[in-house]
Amino acid sequence: MDQRVSLITLGVEDLERAAVFYECLGWKRVDSPDGVVVYDLIGQALGLYPKAALAEELGMTKDDIGGFSGITLAHNLSAKEDVAPLLERAEKAGGRILKPAQEVFWGGYHGYFADLDGHVWEIAYNPFAPLSAAGAFCWNGYSE
Amino acid sequence: MDQRVSLITLGVEDLERAAVFYECLGWKRVDSPDGVVVYDLIGQALGLYPKAALAEELGMTKDDIGGFSGITLAHNLSAKEDVAPLLERAEKAGGRILKPAQEVFWGGYHGYFADLDGHVWEIAYNPFAPLSAAGAFCWNGYSE
Repeated sequence: MDQRVSLITLGVEDLERAAVFYECLGWKRVDSPDGVVVYDLIGQALGLYPKAALAEELGMTKDDIGGFSGITLAHNLSAKEDVAPLLERAEKAGGRILKPAQEVFWGGYHGYFADLDGHVWEIAYNPFAPLSAAGAFCWNGYSE
Repeated sequence: MDQRVSLITLGVEDLERAAVFYECLGWKRVDSPDGVVVYDLIGQALGLYPKAALAEELGMTKDDIGGFSGITLAHNLSAKEDVAPLLERAEKAGGRILKPAQEVFWGGYHGYFADLDGHVWEIAYNPFAPLSAAGAFCWNGYSE
């Protein structure tokens, strides 16, 4: 198994409502069939998909989807001072701040929000792992 | 907010046990501090982190983490015939098959497994979205 995640799917209650949230943050969807909203990321895509359809795909019922299964998605930034404004923007778009921007014990700076469906995002500045010029991340950082 | 996910974190019950699963599938960890296991992917990384530590980071208790929150991670393959063997390999490593390899209504071929902590992976072949030579995915495919 090669080391890649091709598509992250987030199950959502209301597809267009969920998309408006991400588009308020500046994301632009690609063309896709009705019933799924997709954003191309770096080397992968993120899809929004109705929870009912996702449950059906997995042989579950919609009620089987709920809670917090312990997955977080981190969006890293190149500048510490950009963390708090992005969290504010997420809150204005209807997100819920789980942890305000603050110093972290390992030497970074971060905060967390939940999107409209409770999916958890970390907004982080990691001085030890600079992003590439294109925004790519690797654990020990790009040195370009 | 640029369109990227820098780090996917999976909360796990037992860090080394969880890592053995991914390493049985062929992944290789990068150097990281004790208490976190990290795999560099394409333009992003995936981290395994104890649920207890993740809960603390989010101001929760470990019992707040559970269930299935409706996030799936898809790993796409370039050949249909590679889907079933990878699912079998995941099962042998201790994963649970949620959906055996099968044709999908949209014209692809896929199956699902859950890792040792219940995180849900889709193994997929999508004939309409060829991967790049480096394995990168975008919704409408690479044409190289």
